Amino acid sequence: MKDPPGAPGTPGGLGLRLVQAFFAAAALAVMASTDDFPSVSAFCYLVAAAILQCLWSLSLAIIDIYALLVKRSLRNPQAVCIFTIGDGITGTLTLGAACASAGITVLIGNDLNICANNHCASFETATAMAFISWFALAPSCVLNFWSMASR
Amino acid sequence: MKDPPGAPGTPGGLGLRLVQAFFAAAALAVMASTDDFPSVSAFCYLVAAAILQCLWSLSLAIIDIYALLVKRSLRNPQAVCIFTIGDGITGTLTLGAACASAGITVLIGNDLNICANNHCASFETATAMAFISWFALAPSCVLNFWSMASR
Repeated sequence: MKDPPGAPGTPGGLGLRLVQAFFAAAALAVMASTDDFPSVSAFCYLVAAAILQCLWSLSLAIIDIYALLVKRSLRNPQAVCIFTIGDGITGTLTLGAACASAGITVLIGNDLNICANNHCASFETATAMAFISWFALAPSCVLNFWSMASR
Repeated sequence: MKDPPGAPGTPGGLGLRLVQAFFAAAALAVMASTDDFPSVSAFCYLVAAAILQCLWSLSLAIIDIYALLVKRSLRNPQAVCIFTIGDGITGTLTLGAACASAGITVLIGNDLNICANNHCASFETATAMAFISWFALAPSCVLNFWSMASR
């Protein structure tokens, strides 16, 4: 059976991993560029989740590049199981961190209207990047789970 | 093939649905019992997500009770597909709402230390209930997706 586009070991899968890693790194960089993020726990958590997401996606991108270079399929049951569990955990953490940051940016910007003396734009950008990273992770996770269940 | 415990149309599945609906209703009741939740967007979102979660889980609990009473299996592909997509959407919304509320309760309680003039205990309880509801939803969603992929 052929791998569906986006599965590990295909160019689509590699593209998804690179998108995830890029947006996680962007979220991390934008958040870390503000000087007052450590005063809010949720923003620290976003930084931690973005680091984890970035490392995970880069590791899998390297595995995908290797599989593409040596033309091997990654439909090994154990590998797919590990990819699915890892995707599930990092995806839940990234979504949680993005939602927690979004809750706080909305609180600062809309509910309290104290954006003037805060880095609202940076916080919002970092949150949006984390959400985009999660949106790129969701298809990888679903495809991995699907190929794990359907073999 | 026999339904795994926890799949729709089994006593385990009905139990999971009732647990989800109960904790979503508890989160809703606790959050709505505070008078200042509408001033924070994330808490309003938690209330909305808890209402949706409660309605969805109760509807599926009623379908499960019907399937158990007339001893029908719910392994119909269309039904399982609808259940999986619905579980995925409500699960993502509930997790997002719980994380957003958690971010704000941690901000109020730990980062700013202004719990004295807030309903911190209620906010924390409602957040915890929403998380428990999500934890009960996750197995339903995974089992539905698994049975959709493996048929």
